[in-house]
Amino acid sequence: MVTFLAGGTGTPKLLYGGNSVFEPSSSPVVCNTGDDVEMGGLIVCPDVDTVLFSEAGLLDRERWWGIADDTTETHGTVRTLADEAGLEAGPRYLPEDAQTSGREIARWRRFSGVAEFMQLGDRDRAVHVTRTGLLDEGRTLTEAVDVLAEGLGVDRPVLPMSDDPVATIVHTDEGPMHFQEFWVHRRAEPAVDSVEFRGAAAAEPTDAALTALEEPVVVGPSNPVTSLGPMLAMDRFREALEATTVVAVSPFVEDRVFSGPAGELMAATGREPSTAGVAEAYPFADAFVLDDDDGTDLDRPVVRTDTELGTPADGRRVCAAVRTALERAGAEVA
Amino acid sequence: MVTFLAGGTGTPKLLYGGNSVFEPSSSPVVCNTGDDVEMGGLIVCPDVDTVLFSEAGLLDRERWWGIADDTTETHGTVRTLADEAGLEAGPRYLPEDAQTSGREIARWRRFSGVAEFMQLGDRDRAVHVTRTGLLDEGRTLTEAVDVLAEGLGVDRPVLPMSDDPVATIVHTDEGPMHFQEFWVHRRAEPAVDSVEFRGAAAAEPTDAALTALEEPVVVGPSNPVTSLGPMLAMDRFREALEATTVVAVSPFVEDRVFSGPAGELMAATGREPSTAGVAEAYPFADAFVLDDDDGTDLDRPVVRTDTELGTPADGRRVCAAVRTALERAGAEVA
Repeated sequence: MVTFLAGGTGTPKLLYGGNSVFEPSSSPVVCNTGDDVEMGGLIVCPDVDTVLFSEAGLLDRERWWGIADDTTETHGTVRTLADEAGLEAGPRYLPEDAQTSGREIARWRRFSGVAEFMQLGDRDRAVHVTRTGLLDEGRTLTEAVDVLAEGLGVDRPVLPMSDDPVATIVHTDEGPMHFQEFWVHRRAEPAVDSVEFRGAAAAEPTDAALTALEEPVVVGPSNPVTSLGPMLAMDRFREALEATTVVAVSPFVEDRVFSGPAGELMAATGREPSTAGVAEAYPFADAFVLDDDDGTDLDRPVVRTDTELGTPADGRRVCAAVRTALERAGAEVA
Repeated sequence: MVTFLAGGTGTPKLLYGGNSVFEPSSSPVVCNTGDDVEMGGLIVCPDVDTVLFSEAGLLDRERWWGIADDTTETHGTVRTLADEAGLEAGPRYLPEDAQTSGREIARWRRFSGVAEFMQLGDRDRAVHVTRTGLLDEGRTLTEAVDVLAEGLGVDRPVLPMSDDPVATIVHTDEGPMHFQEFWVHRRAEPAVDSVEFRGAAAAEPTDAALTALEEPVVVGPSNPVTSLGPMLAMDRFREALEATTVVAVSPFVEDRVFSGPAGELMAATGREPSTAGVAEAYPFADAFVLDDDDGTDLDRPVVRTDTELGTPADGRRVCAAVRTALERAGAEVA
């Protein structure tokens, strides 16, 4: 068993094509849930779903989110209705008291469905409807995701990092905003002061996640701040990583990032936006996989390959490098 | 001004084609909300929406509910997911404590979104998403429906009977069930013992509805038990009808009903399932419109016409008869 940590698109890209290197049913993925929101009453888990859809062969691999060839009848009509009725688009946070009432899991990240600032595809929405229904029926998020995985025919265990609410709040020069407002609606434009993982102090990793973390762990080429940050903000999660063998794939080539807002967010949170900064952010990592063009000198074992990801051949190549790095770090990989 | 009461399809059919007889902007419709449910977190108001969609020219006039040519991508995927995951279809009531928590308007009629026992079209769903968002933002149901009417370009005032929750619960030989379970899922098969309008004793008609009820009122050919019953269960609503001129269109031709479960429900609630039973159920009615073939002898003025409805010509003809009946009953109709 080898366990992968996922947030955003890095790990799904890494695992795309990697099944011959890491057999899916014995390679669970623990997913960030700090990006999750409740929108229009639906619990939307972008990082969990990217893994589910990728594993189910449904993922839109142009965007690396949502379902390929999905329609947007509902979303389009929601937007038209808001427009015709003169309702302002953009994130519509629910009132303060609604943020913490009802569903515990939805705290601090509840948006009205009016004008839906995030695009939800019609089939994608069905996944949110079903997940939310399962939660409302009393299941945990872990159980709900497990049911979805079964419904979608996914072999790989897909595990939310926690069944408790954690909300990534980006504090900017324009005030605090949920990560999805910052990223989807504002396209990472506001200047970042700091990043808060609201709820993390009270949140616990799930038993399933902790069990998975007893195995060697691979941190995909994810954003250390907003993809890994919510996990690392939970003491028991961080301690579990300290206790096992960890290999991390750098999301940078030296100081060049492959995609996403990792650079700005690392700089804003006092990290060097580079492979060196990632190594500093991951003191628990025992070895690294870096790009061939990345000459960063690290104090831990390094395996180099072309870390560009996107095709099955890419995934297979980088997974093979990850496997070598795990062995260098002393992990026993079946 | 003339105000129409609507539940189900009777009044939308009556008004379809009737604009030359009753000008829409001065002919509000007060709608039953006893059929409303919360499903998968969405507040669904079937009777309100049939009027909205009919007025907007969007209604599916084969079924007389939903939007014409709507797709069902989300609903279909929800069903498939439940099926693949081995989750039982049919109404999935939320747990008892969830029935009365959170949104006040959703009490006693909350269903999980898992396997959605009611079909929601994709564009139809957008209306529910927007309405629910408006409610969550703090608007009343009346305000939310008004915004939807604006968004859909509807001129006619469409007024929910109440902003308070009222749930039509059908008590059957198989136990109590929400009207939508009885009607949509069970197709009115269980034997009915009684019908309860849960919440009605504490519910109030809205100010907008009460103002509209100061005008002459037309009761469309609706089911007296489940379409009108929730309205009549509110004291102030019934008193308002007693104080104004009311014309009712019988949903029967003697003892033959045009559509829907009116017959069974009237019999079960101690009413004769016939025009005579309707007249008894509507002591506040001052005149009736009956079918040409309906020889029922009533103690109040009667205007007869062909009361079959479905086409614009039908609506125009029956609306003209309604207008004559209003005049016979002494109403001043501009």
